[in-house]
Amino acid sequence: MAKQPNIKFVKNAAGRIVPTIVNGISMPPFKGVNKFRPDRTMASPKVRSCIDYPSDGNKLLPNLKEALKKCGLKNGMTISTHHHLRNGDGLTNILFDTIKELGIKNIRWFPSASFSCHSYLQKYLEDGTIHHIEGSMNGPLGQYASEGKMKGMGVLRSHGGRYRAIQDGEVHIDIAVIAAPSADAFGNANGVSGKSACGPLGFALGDSEYADNVIIVTDTLVEFPCVPWHIQGNNVDYVVQVESLGDPEKIVSGTTQVTKSPDRILIAEYIAQFVEEAEIMKDGFSFQAGAGGINLAFLLLLKEKMKSKGVKARFIRGGSTQYLTEMLEEGLTDYILDGQAFDREGVCSLKRNPHHINTSPFTSYNFHGKGNFASMLDVVVLGATEVDLNFNANVVTHSDGYLLHGIGGWQDCLFGKCVILAIPSFRDRVPIIVDSVTTLCGPGEMIDVIITERGIAVNPLRKDLLKKLSTSSLPLRKIEDIQKEVFEICGGKPAPPKLDKNKVTAVIQWVDGTLIDSVYAVKE
Amino acid sequence: MAKQPNIKFVKNAAGRIVPTIVNGISMPPFKGVNKFRPDRTMASPKVRSCIDYPSDGNKLLPNLKEALKKCGLKNGMTISTHHHLRNGDGLTNILFDTIKELGIKNIRWFPSASFSCHSYLQKYLEDGTIHHIEGSMNGPLGQYASEGKMKGMGVLRSHGGRYRAIQDGEVHIDIAVIAAPSADAFGNANGVSGKSACGPLGFALGDSEYADNVIIVTDTLVEFPCVPWHIQGNNVDYVVQVESLGDPEKIVSGTTQVTKSPDRILIAEYIAQFVEEAEIMKDGFSFQAGAGGINLAFLLLLKEKMKSKGVKARFIRGGSTQYLTEMLEEGLTDYILDGQAFDREGVCSLKRNPHHINTSPFTSYNFHGKGNFASMLDVVVLGATEVDLNFNANVVTHSDGYLLHGIGGWQDCLFGKCVILAIPSFRDRVPIIVDSVTTLCGPGEMIDVIITERGIAVNPLRKDLLKKLSTSSLPLRKIEDIQKEVFEICGGKPAPPKLDKNKVTAVIQWVDGTLIDSVYAVKE
Repeated sequence: MAKQPNIKFVKNAAGRIVPTIVNGISMPPFKGVNKFRPDRTMASPKVRSCIDYPSDGNKLLPNLKEALKKCGLKNGMTISTHHHLRNGDGLTNILFDTIKELGIKNIRWFPSASFSCHSYLQKYLEDGTIHHIEGSMNGPLGQYASEGKMKGMGVLRSHGGRYRAIQDGEVHIDIAVIAAPSADAFGNANGVSGKSACGPLGFALGDSEYADNVIIVTDTLVEFPCVPWHIQGNNVDYVVQVESLGDPEKIVSGTTQVTKSPDRILIAEYIAQFVEEAEIMKDGFSFQAGAGGINLAFLLLLKEKMKSKGVKARFIRGGSTQYLTEMLEEGLTDYILDGQAFDREGVCSLKRNPHHINTSPFTSYNFHGKGNFASMLDVVVLGATEVDLNFNANVVTHSDGYLLHGIGGWQDCLFGKCVILAIPSFRDRVPIIVDSVTTLCGPGEMIDVIITERGIAVNPLRKDLLKKLSTSSLPLRKIEDIQKEVFEICGGKPAPPKLDKNKVTAVIQWVDGTLIDSVYAVKE
Repeated sequence: MAKQPNIKFVKNAAGRIVPTIVNGISMPPFKGVNKFRPDRTMASPKVRSCIDYPSDGNKLLPNLKEALKKCGLKNGMTISTHHHLRNGDGLTNILFDTIKELGIKNIRWFPSASFSCHSYLQKYLEDGTIHHIEGSMNGPLGQYASEGKMKGMGVLRSHGGRYRAIQDGEVHIDIAVIAAPSADAFGNANGVSGKSACGPLGFALGDSEYADNVIIVTDTLVEFPCVPWHIQGNNVDYVVQVESLGDPEKIVSGTTQVTKSPDRILIAEYIAQFVEEAEIMKDGFSFQAGAGGINLAFLLLLKEKMKSKGVKARFIRGGSTQYLTEMLEEGLTDYILDGQAFDREGVCSLKRNPHHINTSPFTSYNFHGKGNFASMLDVVVLGATEVDLNFNANVVTHSDGYLLHGIGGWQDCLFGKCVILAIPSFRDRVPIIVDSVTTLCGPGEMIDVIITERGIAVNPLRKDLLKKLSTSSLPLRKIEDIQKEVFEICGGKPAPPKLDKNKVTAVIQWVDGTLIDSVYAVKE
């Protein structure tokens, strides 16, 4: 990696050091929650004309290579992909094989997220086909970046932040390559039909609206119209049919797994009891549920409580799973508002149930819209890799400094009315409640409750919650006390990460596009 | 009306005289079909922030006046409304009462269309509250403009042209006021539920996406989320609840009426036979059907032919009616792609049948997109007020020069693969096939067939159709022959309109934003 001599750094409102220029683009430092107002107009794509598109609506090209050529692929372009195929994605690797074959270099790869299956692309980071990655790096590619090997800086954005960056014109996409489990030759596409059915395609929505060139790649071509059109053909330039988009078994799991760990089940029980005693669980309430083991266990417990108290939710935000769809079918919620489907039953329900609604980062998370859904949630349950005594949290790096996770919708969800972090108090004998998070992703003022198997810490800012819980049987404790206990169990504080503070390998954006923290290379 | 001394005029590619500047904005003359490529970028609205919107999603204001004030209503602003409530719209008149009450002047009113119920607004054109109307003027307001009384020039755009003008930044909307039969406090809205249910809300889509301020006005407020969201709350600034949006009986008719006129039934029979003999009616075909009397009669005849031949359409484009929804339910088409619902059954079907799909001028008609649906239609049946011997057609003025109709989706539909104009050969003893149309709306090269009760004229450019029909029993005739016969019946050519050629009262845009013709004041 080149040295970074010309980059200036500043201390942001959270006390973190961040660069002022990232990959040549000026980015403001974090100013505090709700302190930064944008002063710009939205991205303004070139006006197109039907003259330049086939009047019969047939935009099919024989293969991806032809499509990339037609898009005028050049060195240094920005190419986006999306993670709705998750670890079953077979397209992105083929895409970069094709780019390599065409002799193109220095691509800015702008995925909504990358997974282990994309470790294949490390060779293209090494040979200069890919200059750098702007997007969540789960696993191997995050590790690669952490080792200081990536040429440019990584930019990590939340799902909402990514939509915002596209909409705001902060990231100009030259070519969006959208994997579509079902599409017609005009480019209308969805993720609910076809052998690679994955659920919503919302992660690709912004790209389809603002990219210069949009290529739909599908392994299930249907006659026009492909309905529903999660992606609208009116935004699409070319359509390519391929044999397979990837491995259906890894695109969605057959079933999602509830945790069997006693500690995690205990955490789930605490969450459910908390939500009930804090009087959040009441008729017409709403919550966000993920697909993690604790979350699913919590969901099943909450479901029983709702049934026994006769409480019905107005809506549940997914990541949908079979557990969520069962609640919809049993009448425990009016709607599922779904951003991604984690298992097969989630996909099927989205396809068949008109109360299971497709959403996107635009509707749910975009902070630069006229409001979004995230702040309307009564309660959200999230995870974290670390939290500190001020409730600040980290979701991207581990305590050893390695960047191994993306932000997902995590930052966006912090705007919910009650934000609960559900975390085991230590992992692999590494305490999770630290003195200072390795990487700051979410300001403590937005995090209301931390629930561990050793007790529950309510943010002192939430006097209302503390009052409601004043007679509770729940193990409410000071966060400092939980930390102390865990330090004793684990033999002290976690070892400080060995970071090269002169080498920023990635930056973390806040939802408004300001920089909330830097990720540093780990010394070998 | 002020004189127009500073306006320059040019002759366009169709030989029509058009101004170069309209209401202070430069507009290019018509260059020919598919000859004008835009060289601009799309409208670029100001980036907003969730900071400025209520985090609980509640955007309700007590009344329209408050909402207009919050929007910063000022003299000379552009305010848009939409015609999905048709002649039952009670909101627009109240809107302008409120604007008048606030002492605001010189509004550019930008409706998707105006109807007879808006004749009430003539007083506001007279007193300067409304400066001029840019949008379809059906009936009284068109007559008012024809009398040369409107201050600015009217600009008539097709449905697709209106979306294009907004998207292209040609028309900047300060405040969009959207009547919503069903909405939540966040601003999600649809037209399929509520006492004023009207069907799709697509005419307001572009406004919601690009206007500076968007106000949703509803008479049926539902709890979040209002599903489906034809209009997305993420684009909405304020929500106002009112007692009533208008007269449900006039918003949609209880039933749509098939023509009983023998001449018109004959025309419908000719169309059906033509569509069959021209081999357009085959498995997987598509067509556009309107709600006019001839169109409905044609639909019933076509339906019988489809049933007897075992032919199924892939999709039908509505204006939906009970006749269309019956075809969907009887399995004669896979989908209805619906832009507006003309009767109650159309609305109900859109709400309940997942194969009855909501569309918008963006998907169907926008000429400045990456293709649209209109050009994919195998056959469209349209009307006209006049046609000439070169198949050029008029849909906005009568032969006496009065502007009495809007363009609707008519121009957009001319891109269909076979365009049929279904017209009685004379109306009120005025011949319809003229030597030169009073106002040119559609170039003859795009019109393939003219079907009258006295015979069928196929455009000589369509040698393929002529060949297919060479052994037909249909009364195929030269257009000149039909004209001659009708002139004899009616006692000669229609009297030339008495126009003040020095006074352009409105202009007609082509789908690409160029000016195809001028509408002149009628001399009293």
